[in-house]
Amino acid sequence: MDLTAEFKATLVELRREVDTYLIKSAGASYPASLYQPINYFLEFGGKRLRPLLTLLSCRAVGCDYREALPAACAIELLHNFTLVHDDIMDQDSLRRGQATVHTRWSESVAILTGDGLIGLAYRALMNTPSETLQPVTKIFTEGVIRVCEGQAIDKDFEGMEEVSIAEYFDMIQKKTGELIAVSTEIGGIVGKGDAVQVRALRAFGEAIGRAFQVQDDLLDIISSEEVLGKDLGSDLAQGKKTFVIIKLKELSSAEEWEFIQSVLRSRRLDKDILERVKAIMRKNGVIDQAERQIQRDVRQAQDILLKTFPPDRAEELMQFSLMILNRKY
Amino acid sequence: MDLTAEFKATLVELRREVDTYLIKSAGASYPASLYQPINYFLEFGGKRLRPLLTLLSCRAVGCDYREALPAACAIELLHNFTLVHDDIMDQDSLRRGQATVHTRWSESVAILTGDGLIGLAYRALMNTPSETLQPVTKIFTEGVIRVCEGQAIDKDFEGMEEVSIAEYFDMIQKKTGELIAVSTEIGGIVGKGDAVQVRALRAFGEAIGRAFQVQDDLLDIISSEEVLGKDLGSDLAQGKKTFVIIKLKELSSAEEWEFIQSVLRSRRLDKDILERVKAIMRKNGVIDQAERQIQRDVRQAQDILLKTFPPDRAEELMQFSLMILNRKY
Repeated sequence: MDLTAEFKATLVELRREVDTYLIKSAGASYPASLYQPINYFLEFGGKRLRPLLTLLSCRAVGCDYREALPAACAIELLHNFTLVHDDIMDQDSLRRGQATVHTRWSESVAILTGDGLIGLAYRALMNTPSETLQPVTKIFTEGVIRVCEGQAIDKDFEGMEEVSIAEYFDMIQKKTGELIAVSTEIGGIVGKGDAVQVRALRAFGEAIGRAFQVQDDLLDIISSEEVLGKDLGSDLAQGKKTFVIIKLKELSSAEEWEFIQSVLRSRRLDKDILERVKAIMRKNGVIDQAERQIQRDVRQAQDILLKTFPPDRAEELMQFSLMILNRKY
Repeated sequence: MDLTAEFKATLVELRREVDTYLIKSAGASYPASLYQPINYFLEFGGKRLRPLLTLLSCRAVGCDYREALPAACAIELLHNFTLVHDDIMDQDSLRRGQATVHTRWSESVAILTGDGLIGLAYRALMNTPSETLQPVTKIFTEGVIRVCEGQAIDKDFEGMEEVSIAEYFDMIQKKTGELIAVSTEIGGIVGKGDAVQVRALRAFGEAIGRAFQVQDDLLDIISSEEVLGKDLGSDLAQGKKTFVIIKLKELSSAEEWEFIQSVLRSRRLDKDILERVKAIMRKNGVIDQAERQIQRDVRQAQDILLKTFPPDRAEELMQFSLMILNRKY
């Protein structure tokens, strides 16, 4: 099923509003050593999935999306903070097709850039209408903490031999799922949805977030650098415990797993090695399993929506979930 | 003038409350890679100047300090975040007599520890009574941004030849003064002081903050490592533009300044060099000027208090300012 022309037009409009608000949020110029990298990073673009989810969730409960614009952009600023700091920790040199902040400037600059983005995120959040500001700030703050916990667990896993699929899902719920769930939940709260609607929006966000992360894990290997805009196989090279790696361990032969492990140990990847990894994934049904997992989560997200919202109110988020399902980067 | 026994007892009581609340704030244990360094760092102790200022400011406007305890601890958590990240950027290995987080664990762990502390700071802040939560969160957030700006300017100065004393004061106002001013201002707001009182408390904090930073610059050279609990001469070794350095440049002879510059360039310091730097400072009146600056700022802070508050209400903060004046670390 393709996205409707109307939904595509809505996305273009909302995205423009988000980008404008974001650039305005980072509007200061002194000191340049702080604001130049912040602006550089924000101007890359990015998919803006989280703020779009907030705005669409606000519309789903029947409210003007402009009410949720500050909170939506606060979430995107917070997301950008996590990217800048994660890139340092993961020593990634490319992001959205551009040099990462610590590569282009320095680690010190990147640390401060991330810190500054948190401050700007809360400043944007403070422009949320006062009636809902208090619960929104609380949920947002719990999101900040949860995301740090998730990142810590993700780093811990790098040094561990054995990570179960249950541990993996717990980790990505914190590292990725939480902020996506916060996006939809806050959209519902700012839009003054009732408790049932807000709970449904949060659950929708959690399911979508899970689908999103498994897909991210998959794209890290099967996409291409031009499309992805970042180093391919970066998860693999860092020994991250992704859905793909855990399934490879479970499903591949002893010999194949030996090869994968030698790749993990060497932490170096070239095109040939990546092709061989892909072939092993395909042969053992790892790509299939990942795709089925993504479809299951997206379907679950859609079911939650349709159970709570009338079809016309659910429509935009339904379309959004299809977009997630079909994304290539 | 010595501190009264009553004031000392008050400080002990307030400090205990702050420490208890702080440890409770960082109470989680999983993942250990996040909460262990957070607890390690918080348990060092530290002077807790900022939360004490918040609680005393709350009392100065006639309110029970317990109202301000969450906000006071939020400010201390925020301060600890800046310390952990600054230690990475400044490559300091000692803090409060203990290994810094990035030295004991790793830079990645220290980045996340700082990030987690911001989250915990906001979580504590959210426990502020709702009537004042909104303005308090706004002021707190502006403080976060200002502190990042100050740190960026401080790092910029390291690479600059010429920094004026006016630029120095602007930098320390952002890097140090702002958070101390936020401490007193928020204490006044949570305590429901009127606008005049809150303004006075903020101005008091700004003046005290200035005195505090100039003294920090001085102690970096004239204290001892045992007393200070961190590397001596660290500012000097990093080429920081401190009050002391700017005054040395202004007041020392060409030959002396040549020597100081060779120290700055080599970025290595031993006891003999430090002694020679101290002698040059003493001879050219740099220590005198710093001490006069500190006294002037403390006196200004006291004048502001006495103009706005009746003597009995001003008493505790007056005593506190004396404590700042006489501190040795």
